[in-house]
Amino acid sequence: MSEKITLKNVCKFLKKQDDFIILTHISPDGDTLGSAYALALGLISIGKKACVVCSDDIPQQYDFFVKKANLQPINYKTILAVDVADAKLLGPLYNDYADKIELNIDHHVSNTGFAKRLYLDASASATAECIYDILKAMRIKINSQIAECIYTGISTDTGCFKYSNVTAKTHKIAAELHGFDVDAAEINRIMFDTKSKARIKLERMVLDSAEFHFNDRCMLLTVTEEMKKSSGCTQSDLDGVASISRSVEGVMAGVSVKQSEDDTYKISLRTYEPLDASEICKKLGGGGHKNAAGCSLSGTLTDVKQQVLDVVKQALEELDAGTFNNK
Amino acid sequence: MSEKITLKNVCKFLKKQDDFIILTHISPDGDTLGSAYALALGLISIGKKACVVCSDDIPQQYDFFVKKANLQPINYKTILAVDVADAKLLGPLYNDYADKIELNIDHHVSNTGFAKRLYLDASASATAECIYDILKAMRIKINSQIAECIYTGISTDTGCFKYSNVTAKTHKIAAELHGFDVDAAEINRIMFDTKSKARIKLERMVLDSAEFHFNDRCMLLTVTEEMKKSSGCTQSDLDGVASISRSVEGVMAGVSVKQSEDDTYKISLRTYEPLDASEICKKLGGGGHKNAAGCSLSGTLTDVKQQVLDVVKQALEELDAGTFNNK
Repeated sequence: MSEKITLKNVCKFLKKQDDFIILTHISPDGDTLGSAYALALGLISIGKKACVVCSDDIPQQYDFFVKKANLQPINYKTILAVDVADAKLLGPLYNDYADKIELNIDHHVSNTGFAKRLYLDASASATAECIYDILKAMRIKINSQIAECIYTGISTDTGCFKYSNVTAKTHKIAAELHGFDVDAAEINRIMFDTKSKARIKLERMVLDSAEFHFNDRCMLLTVTEEMKKSSGCTQSDLDGVASISRSVEGVMAGVSVKQSEDDTYKISLRTYEPLDASEICKKLGGGGHKNAAGCSLSGTLTDVKQQVLDVVKQALEELDAGTFNNK
Repeated sequence: MSEKITLKNVCKFLKKQDDFIILTHISPDGDTLGSAYALALGLISIGKKACVVCSDDIPQQYDFFVKKANLQPINYKTILAVDVADAKLLGPLYNDYADKIELNIDHHVSNTGFAKRLYLDASASATAECIYDILKAMRIKINSQIAECIYTGISTDTGCFKYSNVTAKTHKIAAELHGFDVDAAEINRIMFDTKSKARIKLERMVLDSAEFHFNDRCMLLTVTEEMKKSSGCTQSDLDGVASISRSVEGVMAGVSVKQSEDDTYKISLRTYEPLDASEICKKLGGGGHKNAAGCSLSGTLTDVKQQVLDVVKQALEELDAGTFNNK
């Protein structure tokens, strides 16, 4: 298990070390990338060397800070990870790096503690909030480039300040970032309101796939390889499909089942309190946050759906009986 | 034209007067209602009498503050309006009240100045921000009920802190409101993520209606009476359809054409800078904000679409020629 360290000791550690390689999680999102780039830029601004490594291609939508940063590969000495809750989420980087990570910075309460040191702030809406705290504590000056990265991390992980992970502190940080010439509206447009025509086509098919279960308290959406092909969608076009599943009146559990290979399905679960998505997905070997979690399942589409519906049904029954989360 | 008054004089005026009736605009949204209820509750908390009047039914989604406030009709002496940019937007209340409004509080730069006095802060993201300033300046204590109303106004008018009208101040206010036991995530769920099954059905039809024009820089969506009927949608199910029109990559002008009667259509235009939705809609007798404006047109659907496409085309051509907004 990781040694849990304080903000003060994070600062000490980062000041002492140099030549940082910062690892992000697979299927990189705005928080893991925004956090990694903000930290790298911050460290570089005080004379350190740093670069960011991800095992997947970085989606084009993050170009506005990734290309601007133009970080070059370095000979690293110190391995960091940001927003990586589980070593498995390093993907192909796992073999090379998993047992050598000196410090992991994260906000997932489910963090498995795989790194040597862990700075975990589960009250932070995003890992980018932790990075903000770290840069402040290190007295590193935030500039507009760093502010853009932090804003992107916070905005994407909170659904643009929409979810229950937002606190007064989240808004205070956002207020400060607005002072750095950050074009927040443009970032949000890219993150939330820029769908490809292929995505619009896919959405129509996904809405057609909608099933309602358990007195309309569960909505299930399906995305098959066939749907992806015929709409022309790329992987990143699929971001946010999961959130559609929770957007219907009365729905407490929104399930989306996405085919990733012939017989493998990525399940995303979105819930409203008191349902705990992380608890439900744990039963299927997955994990995540209270309101958003996931897992991977193999089998036929019918089987996979049934497995997910079974655990959702059980959770709803426990909720009705007043025994959910009371174990 | 209205006498434009300062924040200080708004406070003086409200302190001096009593028995307030606060008018909202037709098709009431979160900002006009949140502003009206926050102001009414604030005035009542210092011993005044106040009630809120709207010519349309208040959508159920606002019950959480409207029912809780439980304001009773009063014999009014002082007529106020909030978030009403044009006397026409009073709807059927126009005849009784339009020329007797003592004070209008608004953030629309396009306000026509129809009230006796006008407090206008065009830098405010929402009229609810103006109400916050007024309550603060009057040293009225904000409680959780008032905070809920102000939060709702700000959140709805900024697309949950997504649009370019958000400033550092907007986030600072949101941070403060978080301190008043406001369930922001639940408010946002009701405002943004609670669609009826009928709405989901309608969205499918609306997406099927999508037309792309001018090198995909304009997307046009249509909502006919027939579509409303067959999906079972109510008027409030239509909220937010307009924003879909601007959500596609490369689209700078999103048009939605909603049939309101047989040959009358409500046009909503959503634009990205430098296109100015308000300027474009003005040409068709409408108005609004820089990024979101509207107008009403009569004729056949084909005619109405053509009228809108013509002005959008002209604006795009001016933009290409570098003459847009340079007149």
